[in-house]
Amino acid sequence: MTDKRVNKVVLAYSGGLDTSIILKWLQTTYGCEVVTFTADLGQGEELEPARKKAELLGIKPQNIFIEDLREEFVRDYVFPMFRANAVYEGVYLLGTSIARPLIAKRQIEIAEMTGADAVCHGATGKGNDQVRFELGYYALKPDVTVIAPWREWDLRSREQLIAFAEQHQIPIAKDKRGEAPFSVDANLLHTSSEGKVLEDPAQEVPDYVFSRTLSPEEAPDTPTVITIGFERGDAVSIDGEALSPAGLLTKLNDLGRDNGIGRLDLVENRFVGMKSRGMYETPGGTILGVAHRAIESITLDRGAAHLKDELAPRYAELIYNGFWFSPEREMLQALVDKSQETVTGTVRLKLYKGGVHVIGRESPYSLYDQDLVTFEEGAVAYDHRDAAGFIKLNALRLRTLAQRKKKLGM
Amino acid sequence: MTDKRVNKVVLAYSGGLDTSIILKWLQTTYGCEVVTFTADLGQGEELEPARKKAELLGIKPQNIFIEDLREEFVRDYVFPMFRANAVYEGVYLLGTSIARPLIAKRQIEIAEMTGADAVCHGATGKGNDQVRFELGYYALKPDVTVIAPWREWDLRSREQLIAFAEQHQIPIAKDKRGEAPFSVDANLLHTSSEGKVLEDPAQEVPDYVFSRTLSPEEAPDTPTVITIGFERGDAVSIDGEALSPAGLLTKLNDLGRDNGIGRLDLVENRFVGMKSRGMYETPGGTILGVAHRAIESITLDRGAAHLKDELAPRYAELIYNGFWFSPEREMLQALVDKSQETVTGTVRLKLYKGGVHVIGRESPYSLYDQDLVTFEEGAVAYDHRDAAGFIKLNALRLRTLAQRKKKLGM
Amino acid sequence: MTDKRVNKVVLAYSGGLDTSIILKWLQTTYGCEVVTFTADLGQGEELEPARKKAELLGIKPQNIFIEDLREEFVRDYVFPMFRANAVYEGVYLLGTSIARPLIAKRQIEIAEMTGADAVCHGATGKGNDQVRFELGYYALKPDVTVIAPWREWDLRSREQLIAFAEQHQIPIAKDKRGEAPFSVDANLLHTSSEGKVLEDPAQEVPDYVFSRTLSPEEAPDTPTVITIGFERGDAVSIDGEALSPAGLLTKLNDLGRDNGIGRLDLVENRFVGMKSRGMYETPGGTILGVAHRAIESITLDRGAAHLKDELAPRYAELIYNGFWFSPEREMLQALVDKSQETVTGTVRLKLYKGGVHVIGRESPYSLYDQDLVTFEEGAVAYDHRDAAGFIKLNALRLRTLAQRKKKLGM
Amino acid sequence: MTDKRVNKVVLAYSGGLDTSIILKWLQTTYGCEVVTFTADLGQGEELEPARKKAELLGIKPQNIFIEDLREEFVRDYVFPMFRANAVYEGVYLLGTSIARPLIAKRQIEIAEMTGADAVCHGATGKGNDQVRFELGYYALKPDVTVIAPWREWDLRSREQLIAFAEQHQIPIAKDKRGEAPFSVDANLLHTSSEGKVLEDPAQEVPDYVFSRTLSPEEAPDTPTVITIGFERGDAVSIDGEALSPAGLLTKLNDLGRDNGIGRLDLVENRFVGMKSRGMYETPGGTILGVAHRAIESITLDRGAAHLKDELAPRYAELIYNGFWFSPEREMLQALVDKSQETVTGTVRLKLYKGGVHVIGRESPYSLYDQDLVTFEEGAVAYDHRDAAGFIKLNALRLRTLAQRKKKLGM
Repeated sequence: MTDKRVNKVVLAYSGGLDTSIILKWLQTTYGCEVVTFTADLGQGEELEPARKKAELLGIKPQNIFIEDLREEFVRDYVFPMFRANAVYEGVYLLGTSIARPLIAKRQIEIAEMTGADAVCHGATGKGNDQVRFELGYYALKPDVTVIAPWREWDLRSREQLIAFAEQHQIPIAKDKRGEAPFSVDANLLHTSSEGKVLEDPAQEVPDYVFSRTLSPEEAPDTPTVITIGFERGDAVSIDGEALSPAGLLTKLNDLGRDNGIGRLDLVENRFVGMKSRGMYETPGGTILGVAHRAIESITLDRGAAHLKDELAPRYAELIYNGFWFSPEREMLQALVDKSQETVTGTVRLKLYKGGVHVIGRESPYSLYDQDLVTFEEGAVAYDHRDAAGFIKLNALRLRTLAQRKKKLGM
Repeated sequence: MTDKRVNKVVLAYSGGLDTSIILKWLQTTYGCEVVTFTADLGQGEELEPARKKAELLGIKPQNIFIEDLREEFVRDYVFPMFRANAVYEGVYLLGTSIARPLIAKRQIEIAEMTGADAVCHGATGKGNDQVRFELGYYALKPDVTVIAPWREWDLRSREQLIAFAEQHQIPIAKDKRGEAPFSVDANLLHTSSEGKVLEDPAQEVPDYVFSRTLSPEEAPDTPTVITIGFERGDAVSIDGEALSPAGLLTKLNDLGRDNGIGRLDLVENRFVGMKSRGMYETPGGTILGVAHRAIESITLDRGAAHLKDELAPRYAELIYNGFWFSPEREMLQALVDKSQETVTGTVRLKLYKGGVHVIGRESPYSLYDQDLVTFEEGAVAYDHRDAAGFIKLNALRLRTLAQRKKKLGM
Repeated sequence: MTDKRVNKVVLAYSGGLDTSIILKWLQTTYGCEVVTFTADLGQGEELEPARKKAELLGIKPQNIFIEDLREEFVRDYVFPMFRANAVYEGVYLLGTSIARPLIAKRQIEIAEMTGADAVCHGATGKGNDQVRFELGYYALKPDVTVIAPWREWDLRSREQLIAFAEQHQIPIAKDKRGEAPFSVDANLLHTSSEGKVLEDPAQEVPDYVFSRTLSPEEAPDTPTVITIGFERGDAVSIDGEALSPAGLLTKLNDLGRDNGIGRLDLVENRFVGMKSRGMYETPGGTILGVAHRAIESITLDRGAAHLKDELAPRYAELIYNGFWFSPEREMLQALVDKSQETVTGTVRLKLYKGGVHVIGRESPYSLYDQDLVTFEEGAVAYDHRDAAGFIKLNALRLRTLAQRKKKLGM
Repeated sequence: MTDKRVNKVVLAYSGGLDTSIILKWLQTTYGCEVVTFTADLGQGEELEPARKKAELLGIKPQNIFIEDLREEFVRDYVFPMFRANAVYEGVYLLGTSIARPLIAKRQIEIAEMTGADAVCHGATGKGNDQVRFELGYYALKPDVTVIAPWREWDLRSREQLIAFAEQHQIPIAKDKRGEAPFSVDANLLHTSSEGKVLEDPAQEVPDYVFSRTLSPEEAPDTPTVITIGFERGDAVSIDGEALSPAGLLTKLNDLGRDNGIGRLDLVENRFVGMKSRGMYETPGGTILGVAHRAIESITLDRGAAHLKDELAPRYAELIYNGFWFSPEREMLQALVDKSQETVTGTVRLKLYKGGVHVIGRESPYSLYDQDLVTFEEGAVAYDHRDAAGFIKLNALRLRTLAQRKKKLGM
């Protein structure tokens, strides 16, 4: 454990067994006042039971914080990330990574409000989430004390945890006594499952793992066609209906779930140095990502689009590694946001059994000008003869290289 | 037209009406000897009719070159590109782009063999292909004369082309008299369709455009599961059966076609400066791309994988723009190939109605070590307490920034 | 020549012989009204003679524009570029490149004011400047007609130019009759010399070429020490004296000249495809560049600094190639400027015989905290033991790779 | 201290007081056999005294390894790095960083030879060197035990160290009793000085700090002109005399020292998260870096050169951070080395009072072709009219953007 004295700690509290054990462990180990913070990021669980449980464990009412952060989550974290087309290792839409900075930020804000000197999270010592939480904490409150129970305590097995819970009168649901067959994280953007039965990357993920999407096979036999409206890079409507950020993502999640969209079986590289196999379900986000690229395809200039493409892996890595609150992420965001000023219009998509297919896009800012691409003559801006000079000068250095080869018999 | 004297020209000749017109136009305009080069890159057309047609148009037998380049195409162009996970503008697998350098290279080799001083292609003056052909020509034979009829002649309409053909006794198939509703390019990797009826990016592509894939809706209701074997970054077998590069891609194309895989409706940015809408079908390549990333996911180290990811857009842009035979493409290839030494193993995939889903991967070179990721204690290489120091030092600069903010009231 | 009808053209007019010939050529060839635009960008020539000469050549007074753009040049072009630490090919400070966009912008603005439909510049057909001018023109007025006499006319030699001048009563200074031994471009940031006698890169540049700096050997034997003040990335004072952008650069130029600073003998790669050898003198800019990096070294976070470093070559290439008015340059500028908010403070420099040596830097925003770096214990934010964990987790993937090697006998 | 049992440890042993204390501390703390490894990397100290001292401290003769690694150091570490033009944070030539991997590699090799299970270095717990050593160790021998005394022991002050030494009969030179005013590291490439009296970045470095170079002011009043010969990217001769890698760098060091070249006063960002101020002297390396860029300037194609420039900061960061033995460094090296095949020729330099000025370069592989750059007509590969088309197509997307602005009144 950390050797610092702690007076008051803000705990990221889900209301579940594990964070309840942490709550009690904080009280008994640090003898400190505990403030619980429970956030609705769209994980699909009711929050009020968390209040009851916290009270039961002796938390004062004024120390219980329960907040619905869904709109802030989508508006200020998910959407900026999608503007960048951020994808980690070619495929992962960063659903877990992007939720951590917001939780960290609110914990620190609550610490400031309540005069707490410490914060605590329930992430394990082998994963990325500990890094994401703690980089967030430190970036926002450099002198905060961070408590990471899973790295500190000597509860080494499920049995010991259960024993600790029993000893401290923490209620234990029946199905929580044994080991979970895998661990789950969820928010409005995605659900991830990993560990235990999922660890062998050679083995197909068993069907009961999925909680958020129908399988493509179960999805309807007829496609669903939708139109997503964008303004300045952000989705703002579905089929003409204006929606709030969280409302829109919720709707896309429903559409994605029904059409078997967004499952991903991945072996990824963790920031802490090992590989891990994850199973992700990102139904709405998968649709959103395809749609955003499509609206960009007609509204972004090539120079802007290619620069974004080259920097997107870097941006994604920063978020994956937990550097949301870093100058370099903010610099990249400034670059990305600068490009989105005209990313406005609509994209039509066909959703079908796991697939998201673009079938049309329109924009008042479209840079696609039919006159320029028709194969007939007539367009003023493009003269076929220009192409000859363009090619000649682009070829010049290659010709020079070839002449050198010839001259030197290389 | 170019103002150079031309004695002998090697024409990239498909045997179709357009290149037959070009052939005749070369003879009449330049008064030069024409060598025809017809390559099988897997476009799915018989080549022998091209020989007949060339003979009919007065080409001497020794000047008719017909070659099956499918193995070379896949082995030396497609596979190296897939090692790089090259994707243009986030989605396009570069099916047309990658075929041009090989055609250019063979044209130049035939020019050297036959003593020709010029080469000629049938690409239009508004597209990328003219650039790709000509950069290839110049890079390999810097003093070659390049003839690009579509930029040179004054045949301004379909009617004029047909009139020219009739005037020179070029046989015209009935269905070639009118305008084609769109233009098509095909090879073993893909089929592209663009122009005319496809030009409005707001309009869905009509179904008759697709020639290479079933639609997802028409594909079978049961998934197909396959296993692809890789060696040093290249696919070498399907379901345990060793296959040549072209054999393998052909097989993947069949699998892809049957399962509705690889259709892409795209608005892309051409090198020559305008946007264009293309409809691509890349059935086997789509499967291959997913599989290659999956085998890399367990055999490539994070540092290698992320460096590749950051450079892939650049590599893709080089190929799209026609710079295959450039020092920078070769440098990037050296970097990529260095990483592929251990990219060996098998990937299991489920193909279903347009989707390619990874369900397992195995490798003797796997870097995925289950002992390291299990959530229990015991693994020697990873100590939970290390994470604390790791995070602390990664956070140090962020804390310093935060302290500055605090100190200065920023 | 361009086949478009031209009514009125805005000519970038220096008042020298060459642009006077162009002026007359425009009148005689296009029969159009000519508007002259002469800008003071600090090239060190008086502008009023240009007015006289224009009048002499028949330009109406209201069509003669003479402007002092020095402040705008430094403030809106030079300084933003230095914020990015832009250096082309490792050494060139882009002195010529950065002046072109401003000239192009003013020409277009004058064209809009005067109702001109064309613009004209005097850059040759082999250099980069034609590209920079014309990309600027087109980016700001897409329908403008561009006249580039050196690419259009048939005046093929110095003799023909002189003959044309004589024929049209253009006054010819005696020393302009013969060929110049090399060509020169100058503005407040630099003077470049290239061509003719300078073309052989194996030959040392003869001393008479330099006009802007003493040679290091001639410079004083005692160093000059100065202090430059920065605010938000821009230099604002020298030795405590606040100066306007142009005033500051002028002062730095004097200091640089006197101390033999800023000469550069370079072989560079032109955008148009060939190599060229240039001789540059950038006295003040060389000092400014060193100073800017020094103030950044204590005020910029590592993440910000390294991201800038990785993007600086790209930014420099864009400016060199003429893409100042492009979305991607503006996006990069947004990224750079975001980082400069705290780049405020002072840098002390020793100037001595060609060298610029940083000897001190201070800032209220300094991130350099002596407590953190002393080799003794005590600093709270840094615990030696953290380093062990930091290293262990950074090493984890390398150890996994090594274990694989060992296991497989690789 | 590490909780592992250690039987035999290979210590990086300089023979100085600090590593002698470490030696004894290892014996007394771990009760293990100690193997000393003392390498000549050109630090300018005799090695035989280290043997005597090791024997005196009880090391068996067969456990004393003293090696001259200068040639290997320059050939296999310094030169590959200079091929990449690696510069950290715009200015630092990585003189300390590049020596660490070689020492780590030899320690591990000696560990394998002697059956040692541990290695030990004398780097402090706050610097980069601990990271560089240990990443090297782990990358080459994943199961090695690493001992870092400065992070482990409880000797907290100079007094305690001296007391420990006295207690264990370690001879103490008089000038080592007190604190050194700053710490020094040296090898054939450079000497660094940092810490203590140098820590305030606002204060000029006092003159007695420099050990490796004359000051520019003291350097001769007449320039020295030299010619460096390169083959495939590596320097091979000076003034026509072929030299071994270490011989050549030694000679350049002499030339640099005499001419006051290579001093650098820098605030840099350490990998461990803090800023530090260092004083570097890199006399020969500074000359070599300038010369290498100059020979590249005529032998490298633009595409190759710019790709290298964009990747150089990344490559430098990897070396600075200690990732020499990583896949990504090796991949970048493959890319760099691929480009160096034709980097052969000679560069003429003028060395003068701290400055390194290129005055000429020649190569049989030169891509600089005078015919192409002269301002007169005649060169076949370059037609002025091509420039018009080149510019037009490069401008096309900018014009489209401008048209959009106009149309929408943006």
